[in-house]
Amino acid sequence: MSSCNLERLKDKIETFAKFGDTGNGGITRFSLSREALAARAEFVKRCERLGMIITTDDMANVYATISGEEGLPAIISGSHADSVRQGGNYDGILGVLTALEAAETIVTEKIPHRHPITVVIWTNEEGARFEPAMMSSGVITGKFAKDKMLTSKDAEGVTFKEALEVSGYMGEEKNRLSADKYMACVELHIEQGPVLEAEGVDIGVVEGVCGMINYEFTFTGQAGHAGTTPMKYRKDALYAAVKTIQYLHDELDKLDSKLVYTTGKIAAHPNIHTIIPDVVKFTLDARHQDPEVIKQVLEIIKAIPSEVEKCQVSYQEAWSRATVSFYPKYIDYVESNAKKLGYTTKRLYSGPGHDAQFITDVIPTTMIFVPSVGGHSHCEEEYTPLEACLKGANVLLDTILSIDKS
Amino acid sequence: MSSCNLERLKDKIETFAKFGDTGNGGITRFSLSREALAARAEFVKRCERLGMIITTDDMANVYATISGEEGLPAIISGSHADSVRQGGNYDGILGVLTALEAAETIVTEKIPHRHPITVVIWTNEEGARFEPAMMSSGVITGKFAKDKMLTSKDAEGVTFKEALEVSGYMGEEKNRLSADKYMACVELHIEQGPVLEAEGVDIGVVEGVCGMINYEFTFTGQAGHAGTTPMKYRKDALYAAVKTIQYLHDELDKLDSKLVYTTGKIAAHPNIHTIIPDVVKFTLDARHQDPEVIKQVLEIIKAIPSEVEKCQVSYQEAWSRATVSFYPKYIDYVESNAKKLGYTTKRLYSGPGHDAQFITDVIPTTMIFVPSVGGHSHCEEEYTPLEACLKGANVLLDTILSIDKS
Repeated sequence: MSSCNLERLKDKIETFAKFGDTGNGGITRFSLSREALAARAEFVKRCERLGMIITTDDMANVYATISGEEGLPAIISGSHADSVRQGGNYDGILGVLTALEAAETIVTEKIPHRHPITVVIWTNEEGARFEPAMMSSGVITGKFAKDKMLTSKDAEGVTFKEALEVSGYMGEEKNRLSADKYMACVELHIEQGPVLEAEGVDIGVVEGVCGMINYEFTFTGQAGHAGTTPMKYRKDALYAAVKTIQYLHDELDKLDSKLVYTTGKIAAHPNIHTIIPDVVKFTLDARHQDPEVIKQVLEIIKAIPSEVEKCQVSYQEAWSRATVSFYPKYIDYVESNAKKLGYTTKRLYSGPGHDAQFITDVIPTTMIFVPSVGGHSHCEEEYTPLEACLKGANVLLDTILSIDKS
Repeated sequence: MSSCNLERLKDKIETFAKFGDTGNGGITRFSLSREALAARAEFVKRCERLGMIITTDDMANVYATISGEEGLPAIISGSHADSVRQGGNYDGILGVLTALEAAETIVTEKIPHRHPITVVIWTNEEGARFEPAMMSSGVITGKFAKDKMLTSKDAEGVTFKEALEVSGYMGEEKNRLSADKYMACVELHIEQGPVLEAEGVDIGVVEGVCGMINYEFTFTGQAGHAGTTPMKYRKDALYAAVKTIQYLHDELDKLDSKLVYTTGKIAAHPNIHTIIPDVVKFTLDARHQDPEVIKQVLEIIKAIPSEVEKCQVSYQEAWSRATVSFYPKYIDYVESNAKKLGYTTKRLYSGPGHDAQFITDVIPTTMIFVPSVGGHSHCEEEYTPLEACLKGANVLLDTILSIDKS
């Protein structure tokens, strides 16, 4: 059985770490930025050297394909190459580089395969420069309206359309991924969480992407001077928020232990140490693979009284996502191939969103996770040891070949 | 017995409301701004029309004096004429205008008085343009180093020294208030809180200014992705802060009911809805007239464990103030004069700081409070009905005359 090559994968990871290098172990590589275009140029150069054919679609997604022995639709693998500000060297790009390494192994070792094999870079997954996240996989799978996406502006006022036009990577709509040209998708990604490392697991067998809800709560009380308003006259919006966060913890902790929920953002007005806050807002993000559990979360939210500590309470859904399930046969391939290689595995659902969750609506799709040391992600400390990356690449290679044979 | 004049006081309040008028019922009149200088010019014009002698000291404090029948030190009354951004028409300026009205009554009705009577405008009480608050009364009473104050900068980078020099109100250090030239001080101010109005009281007999402490707490946990970090692995700094705010409420509520405490300011880092906060800070302001109660507050703070919800806890004092007690004889004068006039009274301590709390260290001092409708202050809704202002002016007039006779 053929294996991916450690030294080659090391070279790939180290080379791509230079494009947007912050000098502190991480990268800032916004979508279609100079740094991202340099990374794409290196990707294209390496793919062409392997004899791959490059096409791009109208959202600047880049497809590099090695032909198959039969006139069949292609198996596609890859991820994104953009990062958040001061992000790491693994989120997204590792999915591109392991796919490239798998393709390189197939080419150099002349591994027979019936289907063409495509390595893809999806444009603007992070949404860090142009909102929203997963923009281009979203457009080609009908989740987002392209017209609207083209008007999305970065902090300097540049539209996505303008960045697209000057990138040199804007191709034709007919080159988009579609069910007639592609038959399967596998995306490798870092876990971005602490579970695999903590449990000593090599490979995360991703069954799907957790459903989630995100709510914003607003508490309206009355401002007053810290020194003149007796406690009994107060309508302290921060205290009302504190009581409610505690209530949420108390109630949500009674639900399934796989539920994750986060109150990540809080703002008080006027936020002055000598003024009682009159308006406080906070967010709640909750994720679980089982829609029933999400329903229980909603019931807990709905049970919050309209008045807490004499303050008015209101809330609204900011966004939500239904649970996504990957293709069972390919999930099994990932698991069985990992086990054959002697790697430990764990079945899990992804908390964060990925391009694969959109692609799975068009063609059968699955994902492979590798561990994130300390659970760090979206930061310069993000790290996955080379050996762990190689294990992921090997599972990806074997899964592509399993799909090819099926 | 002579009384202040309703129409005259109305004219004063309405005229001075024009200097810095926001158009929404309030004013923005930063210290030594064009608007503040226009108000000073109107004040000087009115004082000179009454035959008062104007002097200014090196901090631009303005003293307008009517001479007394005997060669005695003066009785001084007044307050500040600057406001916060979008402040009201009563905080500070009402103390100046009621003192001016009392002086005008004495002059026009030729009320005999042994001591000179001075109406004062203290410079930069709010600290809204140049920090700190109560700057000029602080400098002349030795609380703040003048050299340091002169370097204080506004948002445009203008130093207090520069503003002082171009104001036209910078006089000589020898003109400062001192114990040889002044024998008593009375400052009228709005309550800035809801108690007098809620209890239907006309006049607040101010016994002193509450002692206070202000602490900043910091909770340090660990950032993590909202979708990938199981609850058991989390070190959520916001939840640690929530637990601690609840603890503070639970414990501080057991202390004397006159204690007021406020968690006015909170900040979470990175404050993103999909990230577990790694650092959260909040402030605690606590005030009470009895130092023993403040000591109990400190004990409650010290009992906070160094680790809450797996997050590190630290805190430090941002600032504090010891309780200030006013001059008992003058406090009694305020109370007895109010009662003689048929007004209802309540003895209380001021929560906010005032120039008078510094002046009382140099000469015997007291304060008079009038009600604030709805407890509003430092906002455009700040309001005290004209009749309530007149009651305050009458108590001020009679108290000045009581001191004069004593």
